[in-house]
Amino acid sequence: MTLLANTPKPPYYAVIFTSVRTADDNGYGETSNRMIELAEQQPGYLGAESAREDVGITVSYWADLESIKNWKANTEHQEAQKTGRKLWYESFKVRISKVERDYGF
Amino acid sequence: MTLLANTPKPPYYAVIFTSVRTADDNGYGETSNRMIELAEQQPGYLGAESAREDVGITVSYWADLESIKNWKANTEHQEAQKTGRKLWYESFKVRISKVERDYGF
Repeated sequence: MTLLANTPKPPYYAVIFTSVRTADDNGYGETSNRMIELAEQQPGYLGAESAREDVGITVSYWADLESIKNWKANTEHQEAQKTGRKLWYESFKVRISKVERDYGF
Repeated sequence: MTLLANTPKPPYYAVIFTSVRTADDNGYGETSNRMIELAEQQPGYLGAESAREDVGITVSYWADLESIKNWKANTEHQEAQKTGRKLWYESFKVRISKVERDYGF
C-alpha cells in the first residue's frame, strides 16, 4: 500500500478538513480511528491522507457530492461531529472541492 | 493570527500537495520555508495550511487558476520543483481543485 491516496483520473471530490485541537483528549484517538474505518466502508469513498502538527489536515476523496452528503449524514459520524465541535476542536474548517486536475509520481 | 487559512467566501481554488519524503535533507527545510515566503508574495495567493507525519500535506489556496499557473511557472519555484523530484520526494501528488463550499468555526 502506498501512503498517498491512489485516486482515479479526475474529476472527483476532495473534502479538506483542517483543525486545531483542544487539550481535551476524551476518546479523540479512538473516535478518529473509527471514523477512518467507517469512512472506508462508505459508497463513493476513494481514499484519504492525514497529518497533524500545529494544524491537523485530513483530505478525503470521494466520487461525487452525493457520497459526501451521505457520509456527513451517517449517524455514528454525526455523533463524532457533535463531540468534535463541543470538545476536540478549538477551530476547524471543512472545504468541499472538486479536483479538476492532478499529477505527480 | 489564526493557524487555519482565513480564506474568502467560495468559490476559490485549493492546491492539495501531498508527499512522502526521502531521507535526503540537502537544503529541504530552507527551500521549503523560502517557497512559503515566496508563495505569499504571489498575486492571487489566499493562504495555506501544512502538516507532516508519515505523509506531508500542504494545501495552498488561490483566487483563480491563472494565479496557480503563474506560481507553478515562477523561476525560483521551478528550481525547487526540479530538486524536489530529484532528491526530496519519494512520491508526491498535486491535485488542483475548486472549493465550492466551506463551513467551520
